[in-house]
Amino acid sequence: MSLQEIIESIRPIDPDRLQKARERLDNLTKPRGSLGVLEQIAARMAALDRELKPVVRAPKVFVFVGDHGVTEEGVSAYPAEVTTLMVHNFLNGGAAINVLARCAGAEVRVVDVGMRDDVTLPGLVRRNVRRGAGNIARGPAMPVEEALQALAVGVEMADQAQAEGSTLVGLGEMGIGNTTPSAALYAALLPCEPEEIVGRGTGLDDAGLERKVETVRRALAVNRERLSDPLSTLAAVGGLEIAAIAGLCLGAAAHRLPVVVDGFISGAGALVAMRLAPAVRDYLFFSHVSAEAGHRVFFARENLRPLLSLDMRLGEGTGAAIGMQIIRDAVAIYNEMATFQDAGIEPGA
Amino acid sequence: MSLQEIIESIRPIDPDRLQKARERLDNLTKPRGSLGVLEQIAARMAALDRELKPVVRAPKVFVFVGDHGVTEEGVSAYPAEVTTLMVHNFLNGGAAINVLARCAGAEVRVVDVGMRDDVTLPGLVRRNVRRGAGNIARGPAMPVEEALQALAVGVEMADQAQAEGSTLVGLGEMGIGNTTPSAALYAALLPCEPEEIVGRGTGLDDAGLERKVETVRRALAVNRERLSDPLSTLAAVGGLEIAAIAGLCLGAAAHRLPVVVDGFISGAGALVAMRLAPAVRDYLFFSHVSAEAGHRVFFARENLRPLLSLDMRLGEGTGAAIGMQIIRDAVAIYNEMATFQDAGIEPGA
Repeated sequence: MSLQEIIESIRPIDPDRLQKARERLDNLTKPRGSLGVLEQIAARMAALDRELKPVVRAPKVFVFVGDHGVTEEGVSAYPAEVTTLMVHNFLNGGAAINVLARCAGAEVRVVDVGMRDDVTLPGLVRRNVRRGAGNIARGPAMPVEEALQALAVGVEMADQAQAEGSTLVGLGEMGIGNTTPSAALYAALLPCEPEEIVGRGTGLDDAGLERKVETVRRALAVNRERLSDPLSTLAAVGGLEIAAIAGLCLGAAAHRLPVVVDGFISGAGALVAMRLAPAVRDYLFFSHVSAEAGHRVFFARENLRPLLSLDMRLGEGTGAAIGMQIIRDAVAIYNEMATFQDAGIEPGA
Repeated sequence: MSLQEIIESIRPIDPDRLQKARERLDNLTKPRGSLGVLEQIAARMAALDRELKPVVRAPKVFVFVGDHGVTEEGVSAYPAEVTTLMVHNFLNGGAAINVLARCAGAEVRVVDVGMRDDVTLPGLVRRNVRRGAGNIARGPAMPVEEALQALAVGVEMADQAQAEGSTLVGLGEMGIGNTTPSAALYAALLPCEPEEIVGRGTGLDDAGLERKVETVRRALAVNRERLSDPLSTLAAVGGLEIAAIAGLCLGAAAHRLPVVVDGFISGAGALVAMRLAPAVRDYLFFSHVSAEAGHRVFFARENLRPLLSLDMRLGEGTGAAIGMQIIRDAVAIYNEMATFQDAGIEPGA
């Protein structure tokens, strides 16, 4: 399927099915609505299952990896080499995402979409489209053609998850410097001012933060002509891993497969997907609000509510892995609780 | 040990041990502090372990059950009989707490401290001190002597958990009408005005809410002479399950055993414990802020931060069971992540 066909195939959740799921929840032995967000999650998960019998099976976290020419501008506290070192760490099972995915019973898939270094490691899914995005402060991140290829990598991963029987996928990323293109995407697509959305990333000082705001401002100015639609904007000021994230959101929604979005960077990819296909938002669970300051602006503007607020700002999919546990809890509530009839209790208020 | 001896044995967490735990966390392959609240949890859990090697073993959720004469005043959307019906549901494994405790790998113990009905069911821990608290709008909930007995039930459960090798305990409760004595305890001990802290419980309408504020006001007025210290206040306007919760907090802290507190009602018991022994707060993890409006007032006044905000208002220990999963995640991060040396990365900022 072409990207356009995928986009056109995405439908909002059927309100009748949501209603049926809510009726079951209202019949479980608890005051109506008293499990709050868990009930909202459960209703969506149920409505997405063909038989209204949701199950979390074979959950997977996809960690898309890309590098960024914009690190030349001094926008990150870590050198670009760390992307490759962290990919080794992921594949050795020693990173935070490995630990938290284990806690969630989820598999981790690490996908090279745009790494600068040509790495061959057992377990690495090699789908490199380009050896690092261009420096967005001086030109486009990539041509539109490459953005489409990177989107297609995300779609392919969604297809794979679907084919393997997964009923829940998580999103994560690694790429030194990638809070900068993410901030540029938010600024262009929400839209908002760079200073509202730019944060300290992995640990910039005040001077670094100022430099980063200025870099985003220059990226938007130098790419001004290219910000005409979501796809061109992604190509102009995004990144390859961010494009793959957007692609996974679209591909998963086309399969009616729910997606757990991680933090600030995954959110930027999700925003691109939402701008390409507004109905995609019904399939997204936003796991947490990042400590990266601008993330709150995104939630407020899009009227979305993250599941968690734990001051995390690591990326990798770490928030998504915790969010998956909450979703598993919500699905268990839906499937396993006794009804009022079972317990011989009058439903009450 | 007497209650006084238990209180005197509770020490704050050793800052040197916390510091050592933080040093380990800073050496794991992530930017410093980038796992936010997870790192704070992990540091406390590590500092509480004798060898700085935290482990979540044999976690248990204690559901303390009690009835309340104040239901005569029409302060609950459910009739008092539901307490007993829900105890059956807990013991049959069909309630929300059973489902969420399974998700957390935790055992549920249901303890009758103050049920009106004399129930004998397999699995019920029978420690009834009194067949329901008195109507606090017309007199004391119980004499001080009975409050001490109910506190001792909580202490006994902490002793039991410790003896069985548990390293984490969760708190929950069941008792139709128990948001009313909880609100009265908050009002007396924070202190604050009844209208700041009283909420809709399991589902009161506007008239019911007004009646409940008035009931709390009357409870505080009629018991005025008895609100001289935390123990007398507990006896005057509390409840038996709330006293047991306070006792479990104290007993656990005396064993250096961390406690996951559930919502509004468990929080009231925890507040009593904190007023009896301020150092107990180092051992408490507040799992979530309840949809019950006044809960936020408690956190703001006590300068505490709940782990989750999921609009839950069910009680039973449901929030605690989810909080236990977050704590397990944090402990796994501490134990299982690679260090910078392992991964050959410079620590950075």
